[in-house]
Amino acid sequence: MIPRLQKNERLDDLMRCGRKIIQNTDEFCFSIDAVLLAHYPKLHKKENVIDLGTGTGVMPLIMADDVSHIEAVELSPVMYDLAKRNVEMNDLAGKINVVEGDYRHIRDMYRSESFDLVIANPPYRPVGNGDVNRLSGVAKARHEFTATLSDVIEAAAWCTRYHGHFAMVHIPERLGEIFYAMHEVGFAVKRLRMVAPRAGKDPNIVLLDAVKGAAEGLKVEPELVVHEPDGSYTDEIKKIYGLNC
Amino acid sequence: MIPRLQKNERLDDLMRCGRKIIQNTDEFCFSIDAVLLAHYPKLHKKENVIDLGTGTGVMPLIMADDVSHIEAVELSPVMYDLAKRNVEMNDLAGKINVVEGDYRHIRDMYRSESFDLVIANPPYRPVGNGDVNRLSGVAKARHEFTATLSDVIEAAAWCTRYHGHFAMVHIPERLGEIFYAMHEVGFAVKRLRMVAPRAGKDPNIVLLDAVKGAAEGLKVEPELVVHEPDGSYTDEIKKIYGLNC
Repeated sequence: MIPRLQKNERLDDLMRCGRKIIQNTDEFCFSIDAVLLAHYPKLHKKENVIDLGTGTGVMPLIMADDVSHIEAVELSPVMYDLAKRNVEMNDLAGKINVVEGDYRHIRDMYRSESFDLVIANPPYRPVGNGDVNRLSGVAKARHEFTATLSDVIEAAAWCTRYHGHFAMVHIPERLGEIFYAMHEVGFAVKRLRMVAPRAGKDPNIVLLDAVKGAAEGLKVEPELVVHEPDGSYTDEIKKIYGLNC
Repeated sequence: MIPRLQKNERLDDLMRCGRKIIQNTDEFCFSIDAVLLAHYPKLHKKENVIDLGTGTGVMPLIMADDVSHIEAVELSPVMYDLAKRNVEMNDLAGKINVVEGDYRHIRDMYRSESFDLVIANPPYRPVGNGDVNRLSGVAKARHEFTATLSDVIEAAAWCTRYHGHFAMVHIPERLGEIFYAMHEVGFAVKRLRMVAPRAGKDPNIVLLDAVKGAAEGLKVEPELVVHEPDGSYTDEIKKIYGLNC
């Protein structure tokens, strides 16, 4: 299907099974964080998944073949519309259900403990911290205007089944707060992976896999390095992006 | 001063300023963890320091030149005796005070908030978890027979001054519990560094620097890799061990 693009929209290659994604250059365009998170959970093709704050729907589009069903919740009407069109363009409407809604009211939207896996790429920075991007869609995706770290973790706690997983990408700077908030709602972080732009540089992304009701005991995995010293992608990133296929 | 060695004791090079250390091969001998932690805090030569569970006194011996004074607390009479002889052998009795005592009763030993920096290389594993080494001194150093993670963090919280530091080395597996316990007593973890045996391998040590009463916000530093692929030490480890001097 050839999509009709609207003003400020562009069509990008999703680098997976030939899938394409429409993005709006006035809004938040997906970045490596979402791609890395979409590949982080260990999947068994039978998971009932929910994506809290799906944006363009990038993570569901990447994960669709490896799970049973995905609910993709998005607050912004502009992004909801984009995600819906992206799902239809890729013929995935039977697998991904895009829902316009606010996950802060998740209790009114879904029954408790109804998902095997919750994924989220939430805003990273508190409001008033860092340079707020003036494009409102971008600001909402990056800063906690519409939902805080606690909001997303509480929503995940509501809808994850007992011993189900919650996979999140965030910034290392907030790892302490993430651990406290997870602990308070009954998640134990079981896997954690730091992502550094280059070997020997400070990690700037962290991937987490928490399990509801699990015993403590964390596996910290090898650091994932994005770029070689010459600026090219490392082999592991190329593999994730499907650049070796 | 030439030390008289007792049964099962050996004399090792501390690789710093020509210092030597006596260790008892029936007891816990210091490992890379202690050396890395001794080099982790940012020091200004004026700190009043306490080491909770000093063992042979290895960390105070390494740090002595960079701080004002160190109290070195040790529960085991055998290790207390060793630490005391190590301090005397290195002519550091004016700087390091070795104290036989149980830091679970720290409130009876020191006034609250009386130290700028608390350091600890505590037992890593809960009792009943992992293969317990049958040599009792080693078991006590590795497993939480005599003090738990909460015990050491609570003792640190008691004696660290407001905005003072608590530096600890532990295993990544227990990072979640460390964050909760730190948070409960008013520490914010401000720096964290993973240590991996080789590049691309799971980190097996974590270094933490927490500040009492600080705002949240964690700096995760670049991973510290111990060995090159050929098994030799990396340049950074050589520098820490003083092997390039």
